[in-house]
Amino acid sequence: MPEYALTLSCPDRRGIVNAVTGVLLRHGGNILEAQQFDDVENSRFFLRCVFTLADGGFDAFRDEFGPLARDFGMDWTARDRGVPRRVMLLASKFDHCLADVLYRWRTGELHMDVTAVVSNHPRETYRHLDFDGIPFVHLPLARGQKAAQEAALWSRIEATGTELVVLARYMQILSDDLAGKLAGRCINIHHSFLPSFKGARPYHQAHARGVKLIGATAHFVTADLDEGPIIEQDTQRVGHQHTPDDLVRIGRDIERQVLARALRNWLDDRILLNGHRTVVFTA
Amino acid sequence: MPEYALTLSCPDRRGIVNAVTGVLLRHGGNILEAQQFDDVENSRFFLRCVFTLADGGFDAFRDEFGPLARDFGMDWTARDRGVPRRVMLLASKFDHCLADVLYRWRTGELHMDVTAVVSNHPRETYRHLDFDGIPFVHLPLARGQKAAQEAALWSRIEATGTELVVLARYMQILSDDLAGKLAGRCINIHHSFLPSFKGARPYHQAHARGVKLIGATAHFVTADLDEGPIIEQDTQRVGHQHTPDDLVRIGRDIERQVLARALRNWLDDRILLNGHRTVVFTA
Amino acid sequence: MPEYALTLSCPDRRGIVNAVTGVLLRHGGNILEAQQFDDVENSRFFLRCVFTLADGGFDAFRDEFGPLARDFGMDWTARDRGVPRRVMLLASKFDHCLADVLYRWRTGELHMDVTAVVSNHPRETYRHLDFDGIPFVHLPLARGQKAAQEAALWSRIEATGTELVVLARYMQILSDDLAGKLAGRCINIHHSFLPSFKGARPYHQAHARGVKLIGATAHFVTADLDEGPIIEQDTQRVGHQHTPDDLVRIGRDIERQVLARALRNWLDDRILLNGHRTVVFTA
Amino acid sequence: MPEYALTLSCPDRRGIVNAVTGVLLRHGGNILEAQQFDDVENSRFFLRCVFTLADGGFDAFRDEFGPLARDFGMDWTARDRGVPRRVMLLASKFDHCLADVLYRWRTGELHMDVTAVVSNHPRETYRHLDFDGIPFVHLPLARGQKAAQEAALWSRIEATGTELVVLARYMQILSDDLAGKLAGRCINIHHSFLPSFKGARPYHQAHARGVKLIGATAHFVTADLDEGPIIEQDTQRVGHQHTPDDLVRIGRDIERQVLARALRNWLDDRILLNGHRTVVFTA
Repeated sequence: MPEYALTLSCPDRRGIVNAVTGVLLRHGGNILEAQQFDDVENSRFFLRCVFTLADGGFDAFRDEFGPLARDFGMDWTARDRGVPRRVMLLASKFDHCLADVLYRWRTGELHMDVTAVVSNHPRETYRHLDFDGIPFVHLPLARGQKAAQEAALWSRIEATGTELVVLARYMQILSDDLAGKLAGRCINIHHSFLPSFKGARPYHQAHARGVKLIGATAHFVTADLDEGPIIEQDTQRVGHQHTPDDLVRIGRDIERQVLARALRNWLDDRILLNGHRTVVFTA
Repeated sequence: MPEYALTLSCPDRRGIVNAVTGVLLRHGGNILEAQQFDDVENSRFFLRCVFTLADGGFDAFRDEFGPLARDFGMDWTARDRGVPRRVMLLASKFDHCLADVLYRWRTGELHMDVTAVVSNHPRETYRHLDFDGIPFVHLPLARGQKAAQEAALWSRIEATGTELVVLARYMQILSDDLAGKLAGRCINIHHSFLPSFKGARPYHQAHARGVKLIGATAHFVTADLDEGPIIEQDTQRVGHQHTPDDLVRIGRDIERQVLARALRNWLDDRILLNGHRTVVFTA
Repeated sequence: MPEYALTLSCPDRRGIVNAVTGVLLRHGGNILEAQQFDDVENSRFFLRCVFTLADGGFDAFRDEFGPLARDFGMDWTARDRGVPRRVMLLASKFDHCLADVLYRWRTGELHMDVTAVVSNHPRETYRHLDFDGIPFVHLPLARGQKAAQEAALWSRIEATGTELVVLARYMQILSDDLAGKLAGRCINIHHSFLPSFKGARPYHQAHARGVKLIGATAHFVTADLDEGPIIEQDTQRVGHQHTPDDLVRIGRDIERQVLARALRNWLDDRILLNGHRTVVFTA
Repeated sequence: MPEYALTLSCPDRRGIVNAVTGVLLRHGGNILEAQQFDDVENSRFFLRCVFTLADGGFDAFRDEFGPLARDFGMDWTARDRGVPRRVMLLASKFDHCLADVLYRWRTGELHMDVTAVVSNHPRETYRHLDFDGIPFVHLPLARGQKAAQEAALWSRIEATGTELVVLARYMQILSDDLAGKLAGRCINIHHSFLPSFKGARPYHQAHARGVKLIGATAHFVTADLDEGPIIEQDTQRVGHQHTPDDLVRIGRDIERQVLARALRNWLDDRILLNGHRTVVFTA
């Protein structure tokens, strides 16, 4: 039986859940999961709901839901969970996040269609990775050619109907223009526990500061570098005995885990934007 | 504005949320929090809901909700969150959990009325603890007097209108009879990561086995020792260098944390029973 | 400059470290790392030491160290860290641990020579994995052929000079005979937090019991199933909402991490046996 | 049998451990614990060693060790572990860290003599805490009287032979002068995961930024605020549903744990300074 996912946010007021469930009920809906959050501070309401429709009338449901959404001033999405999201993976020299995402995709842990693997490095950089039919696109960055490279990237994103771009340790900074175009649909994995150690070589910064934990952060990309809405973070204990190279090694595991959790939550419609923060309805 | 908490579980079917929110809406209800769980395996539905009532008609709400609850075959509770729950604390020689619970009660982290501190040890065992007006009851366990001691305990529980009994490292095993009377309203903190190391001296068992993590478990007490529904667990890394005494010391921190989280969740109506397991709607 | 690793255990008495460092000093040794443990309970002493030798005279060092080791009744090993250990990987249908170990080997995180990948399933089971020249050996298990299959496995272990066998989710139980032959040099990853949930389908057992954390355990294989010395363990938080399939998915990450840490520690001479327990000198 | 602790750091060169253990051996020393660290980057060597002396000649050991320490250019300390360190506790309005430290002191988990509890708030602020004979000193901070208040504090530190000052959520900034006098012997617990969220109201900063983990940091106090050498840190997972007040509550547990671990490690001679970082030989 097909499952559908509804996410919405709107100004908080009485009767939202009753109205939403009313529409569902009239279409033979059965709610499998529902999570909500009232942001009292900003009096804004967030809902994620997974449901089936006995009569399968998803279009009919959408038709009736639209006007209700307008009345409540909702930002909303409703989709068939059976249709995989279209995701593009960008990587550079380090392929640990890319390899991990591909493995989880293969096992079905990440339910998505990968529209392309894009890199500023050539295919042989990943010669040990089996892309299993996923198109590989080499977009090198020649000096002064960034605008052209991003134009090629953007046209590929559009041509492939890509819904989400994942920067899987893609070590190039997106221009404000491209970051703007991808607002809310581009996830980056940053190899530090933001807001600590922004910018370059965070593990070396962490070692120099002598912190006892290192971390990684998955966040939406914005024009304001390393300041985008945080989706997921985790940390690992380190000590005086660890060199910067050790931190890089230990960090690879944190990065893999944090990016995979963020991506899985996005694919599962669990992440809603709330200004410069996120609401993440974790499983 | 007073807040109310509704919890329910019932056989899963369509329209539950819509019906519940319908009653709420008719009484000017505004939902602040709602969490639900569909146990597909057993097709049973669980809901926790926190709400305000514009017209403050809590009794009227209950009157209308009752028949609906019957129709759906609900086990349900609805209460005014402003009224503190009545909790009795039982302890023995080790007072780390007792001291911790009392501290969290004092800071308001645990919103409850403590009906009594009961121990099989005399008051001077806790001479460094300020009970701050809480009655202390010494119920020693003379050989062959267990039935009498439990009778005295039970009458105290009834006389004080105690809703929950917390075994805060109370090192006496309750009789099947008393465990039965307290079914679903008696929480124990066990100093192991159940189901590992049941029974006596779990830290010594853990040391003998050479595990690399030790843990603690908060669970509802049942006649079947150490087999009650698990509410909360946590673990801490240990190593070859730790003696059984070290494990006891490290374990005290885990026990405190795990018991405090379980108790806070219970006071916040977040724990529902699901057969011999629990549904815990964590904050 | 070549680095050497010395590990030893012996009855505790005065002067061990002084005697050991004396030999090192006479050979121009410089200690880079040293960790020791006194098992007071059993009055046994454990040492791991990493050092360089100015004069590079490793054989001369060994020649002088031998008699001293005899005097102290030491179990000891000393080796050139530059020579990779020879490791055989065994897997079955699930390849997440195998894929992870191979990835870490490729990045240099696991410094070893893989003598073979052995499976009771055919090569095409792993068609997406690049073995990069590592011999693959298919040893199917026909009914009644276990002895023959293990004989083939053992001859391959001997022929390849394999020092360590890693059961990377190899779902066959070794015979007591083979387990005995591999005593202290065969590591298994068990998908539960031992000693909980021994035997089959541990994640289903964990779900049935309603635990709030699941775990994995890396241990040395012994004839006594799931009772071997524990090397490494870790846990992850789960909840009522997780199905057995979710636990299997979440568990894959724990298994990968725990096995990789155990294997890396073994390759780095950090694991010493202490009866049915381990001393692990973590980095 | 009395136990002694030796800690030292010096320029790295050959023969340090052999020389140290040689002196020990000549005095009938038996090493119970030893941990070392070679800071290759700065070619500096660190050692912590716990030992007994058969002949009990601690003074004789010190007399012989002194010249050797000079030869190697060692910073060193050697002390009888049976003699409790003298520690002064400073607190302000929030007493969760103070109460926790006092509890751990009472149970023997923190082996020390508390020379005084000092606060800028009056005794009744802590009326529920049993100081059990520890002198309480009220040092209020009248406008423009900071120098006088710190002078009174300093004279109390000197008069009581206080070796370590613990800022247990003492919400006053020490002057550069006092911070300088207490260099290396004043530990502060900061309620954020430094270097994130320095300065005031870190939990509110964390909430505003939308981080998914909050933390606490124990560090040595220096004139450079929140920049002192980090001793210990830990983090806890939080989410969109947590208000700043929730973060404050959750943070109390992290602060307690982190401060207690740092203090216990200091009392156990496990913390050595390495420039603006620390070497922590954890148990």
